[in-house]
Amino acid sequence: MTSTLILLRHGESEWNAKNLFTGWVDVALTEKGRGEAVRGGELLKEAGVLPDVVHTSLQRRAINTAALALDAADRHWIPVRRSWRLNERHYGALQGKDKKQTLEQYGEEQFMLWRRSFDVPPPPLDDADEFSQVGDPRYADLGADMPRTECLKDVIARLLPYWESAIIPDLQAGNTVLIAAHGNSLRAIVKHLDGISDDDIAGLNIPTGMPLVYRLDETFTPTVAGGEYLDPEAAAAAAAAVANQGR
Amino acid sequence: MTSTLILLRHGESEWNAKNLFTGWVDVALTEKGRGEAVRGGELLKEAGVLPDVVHTSLQRRAINTAALALDAADRHWIPVRRSWRLNERHYGALQGKDKKQTLEQYGEEQFMLWRRSFDVPPPPLDDADEFSQVGDPRYADLGADMPRTECLKDVIARLLPYWESAIIPDLQAGNTVLIAAHGNSLRAIVKHLDGISDDDIAGLNIPTGMPLVYRLDETFTPTVAGGEYLDPEAAAAAAAAVANQGR
Repeated sequence: MTSTLILLRHGESEWNAKNLFTGWVDVALTEKGRGEAVRGGELLKEAGVLPDVVHTSLQRRAINTAALALDAADRHWIPVRRSWRLNERHYGALQGKDKKQTLEQYGEEQFMLWRRSFDVPPPPLDDADEFSQVGDPRYADLGADMPRTECLKDVIARLLPYWESAIIPDLQAGNTVLIAAHGNSLRAIVKHLDGISDDDIAGLNIPTGMPLVYRLDETFTPTVAGGEYLDPEAAAAAAAAVANQGR
Repeated sequence: MTSTLILLRHGESEWNAKNLFTGWVDVALTEKGRGEAVRGGELLKEAGVLPDVVHTSLQRRAINTAALALDAADRHWIPVRRSWRLNERHYGALQGKDKKQTLEQYGEEQFMLWRRSFDVPPPPLDDADEFSQVGDPRYADLGADMPRTECLKDVIARLLPYWESAIIPDLQAGNTVLIAAHGNSLRAIVKHLDGISDDDIAGLNIPTGMPLVYRLDETFTPTVAGGEYLDPEAAAAAAAAVANQGR
């Protein structure tokens, strides 16, 4: 028996548009981002790839992307599950900083290390910083799990328990599962699914608003490595644009 | 220990605006309706009455009202539960019919009997009718529970099992519970909560987009009969307008 997993990265947010590091800061979608989400849902409907259950992060840009896409696909009524474990990577002290300015200030090497290295997190964010999420009621139960910064390795470590305990059971039950999340939490899932090495994951970019569909076998291995975008040409162009952020 | 329950009727829908009987037909909110939902969420935020969990029907006008209100209240990230048992009353063969035209065709007495009698449902809707929900995947599991028409008594009968099994446990756990639903499913809850008689419930109208807050004691009895609107003057004016529909 195969199961179907759909990954959907949120559309453009206010801080994507301003080219700021966002991480756990809970910014809204732009009008363009809302349109991307609707288009993502229309693609699902046209392809007949209809989610039975949706998982989102606790962040408004992913939550609203899921709501808009599902409404466009006439699947707004399916069960919803949410977890902080699907949140974007915590960007530490870079949260709220301009990407271009950070590149100029720290240089190409340090910039790319923070953005794409597997195991080097940015400096931690101070709890008193205006862009800290310490004290946010949605994270009140996290205790020692509350991050102050994360590298991709950290994202994988906090995401996999949710993958095993919440997403796998939904797939096992025969559901088509939609995960509406973020650039780095989705990269973590793709790395896990496709067995991508710690080095090679640096080169993988996921475009916004483009449903990426994986058919999984009974061991939850992709039947097609890398999955399939419902709109492959648009996805390739968008992924190239993501790779060039900060330039 | 007291718990808090918030009832929120969806904002204006496309068919409210056209004065058509809607029932289980899954119409969208109008722009005005979306604004009402946002305003409802702002009222919650201003009053500091913050939901910990939300329950909605399976209908887009309630689902989107919840999403917009929670986003405005910064509570978009709370757990979501949905059930067909919170759906609007099924309006039977009246679904898709013009309210004013129905009033003229059948006369005041029959019209008010269908709209407000406790136990007289409209004629059942034919499964082949364009406005039937038979065959809709979201109701595939209902079997013999699938309604073809309902009176308010029927709504109460299918709603109370969900009240007992899903909403009471959330209240018992100490959560502030938001129910985003419909004119008649909310009237069913209010009738149950306030012990309103089968006759008196006919005169009770719930305005759209206005949070109605109940503080409940440990027996889930309202500490203030009828609850309290966060914006009482606007609610009174809006309820009067609902009562005059079809005129």
